[in-house]
Amino acid sequence: MSGRLIGVGTGPGDPELLTLKAVRAIEAADVVAHFAKAGNGSNARGIVADLIRPEQVEEALLYPITTEIERTDPGYVSAITGFYDEAAERLAAHLASGHTVAVLSEGDPLFYGSYMHMHVRLAHRFPTEVIPGVTAMSGCWSAAGVPMVQGDDVMSVLPGTLPETDLARRLGESEAAVVMKLGRNLPKVRRALAAAGRLEGAVYVERGTMAAARHLPLAEKADDAAPYFALVLVPGWAGRGGA
Amino acid sequence: MSGRLIGVGTGPGDPELLTLKAVRAIEAADVVAHFAKAGNGSNARGIVADLIRPEQVEEALLYPITTEIERTDPGYVSAITGFYDEAAERLAAHLASGHTVAVLSEGDPLFYGSYMHMHVRLAHRFPTEVIPGVTAMSGCWSAAGVPMVQGDDVMSVLPGTLPETDLARRLGESEAAVVMKLGRNLPKVRRALAAAGRLEGAVYVERGTMAAARHLPLAEKADDAAPYFALVLVPGWAGRGGA
Repeated sequence: MSGRLIGVGTGPGDPELLTLKAVRAIEAADVVAHFAKAGNGSNARGIVADLIRPEQVEEALLYPITTEIERTDPGYVSAITGFYDEAAERLAAHLASGHTVAVLSEGDPLFYGSYMHMHVRLAHRFPTEVIPGVTAMSGCWSAAGVPMVQGDDVMSVLPGTLPETDLARRLGESEAAVVMKLGRNLPKVRRALAAAGRLEGAVYVERGTMAAARHLPLAEKADDAAPYFALVLVPGWAGRGGA
Repeated sequence: MSGRLIGVGTGPGDPELLTLKAVRAIEAADVVAHFAKAGNGSNARGIVADLIRPEQVEEALLYPITTEIERTDPGYVSAITGFYDEAAERLAAHLASGHTVAVLSEGDPLFYGSYMHMHVRLAHRFPTEVIPGVTAMSGCWSAAGVPMVQGDDVMSVLPGTLPETDLARRLGESEAAVVMKLGRNLPKVRRALAAAGRLEGAVYVERGTMAAARHLPLAEKADDAAPYFALVLVPGWAGRGGA
């Protein structure tokens, strides 16, 4: 009998935003696996630290690449693919021994999560379950109290890495948007929002649902410094008057 | 001292997908409010039924309109606005008396939730907190095991009510998409997916994370019958080979 692979969404950061199902799955797992950059702790593991017991096996899957290199570089692609292959085989060995393996994933596992790299390599080989989680974007708009979409609104989730004209066009065509991966892209995102007539109403959110969270109207943010995981919310509904 | 308004996301349907924070908020609330169509039970209340205690006050907010009438009809707009105004005043009376009011919201409160109509009317008048929840779409793609987005993928959330050419264009421009509000729109959505070259890979999901959930490749669904709350997932990543 092989064990079960479980992708566990740990939510946006606050341990209280774990689901009951995630808590039970983590507590019952034989092996708890988590991704982190070498030298950093895993954010997902930090969220569930109080649930992990000494008798559980932990698999820390450490990304081999710590500095920012171009993701289209063949050397990067080769290194990262090899890393995911090797990580999947480490988990496969546990699963083949009949052990349940919970792979922690910040937010929701199948929404920009590292767990997906394990899922595509293992879900056809072992019994697999995915436990959805509260996404980072939900955590952010809830913390900021921003009503996002209602009725027939279109919402676009856009990376800040898109070209400026493409960003502006898509922002102009969507009632609501979430722009992720800000970092050095913030000046460009700001210009695209202005071009689309959507700067007013846009909310800048930093460190989402963590204790140090902060949010403010983007138009009131004086500088262009932003961490990579900051995001901009463009509400589809409050901006139209709401009621 | 006025009470606190809490918008509580109850997740997509499985009570195990409630967050710890939602459970505590519901248990601690003086008043539990929920929306339903007259004659139907509230879905959100059904999810949390085991948590509600007899000594809690319940406010069932019953939509006055049960038949499908055109939402742009002035009579509809007037009736529904009056209903939300009156519902908000019922909650305001509790809040003014110092009672905590938890408003249940399926999925995530600020993502297509009825709670938003209370939020815009009350959040500037009373201390307010929003507890995010797992969205219906996360519940669906997790149940179906569909990896949605990774890296710099764009994801579009689209109502099936959009015109066919608009749907096709947006589907062609997004790595991933969720098409909601299928119902009678399914034949049109199917044609738009085909026009965008995205029919292959699209997954039809009915009754999301409920016990009777089912999902299948849309291309294999022989008929065009779909409930209003069924949705189609267009994965951005598995379709490109995943790893």
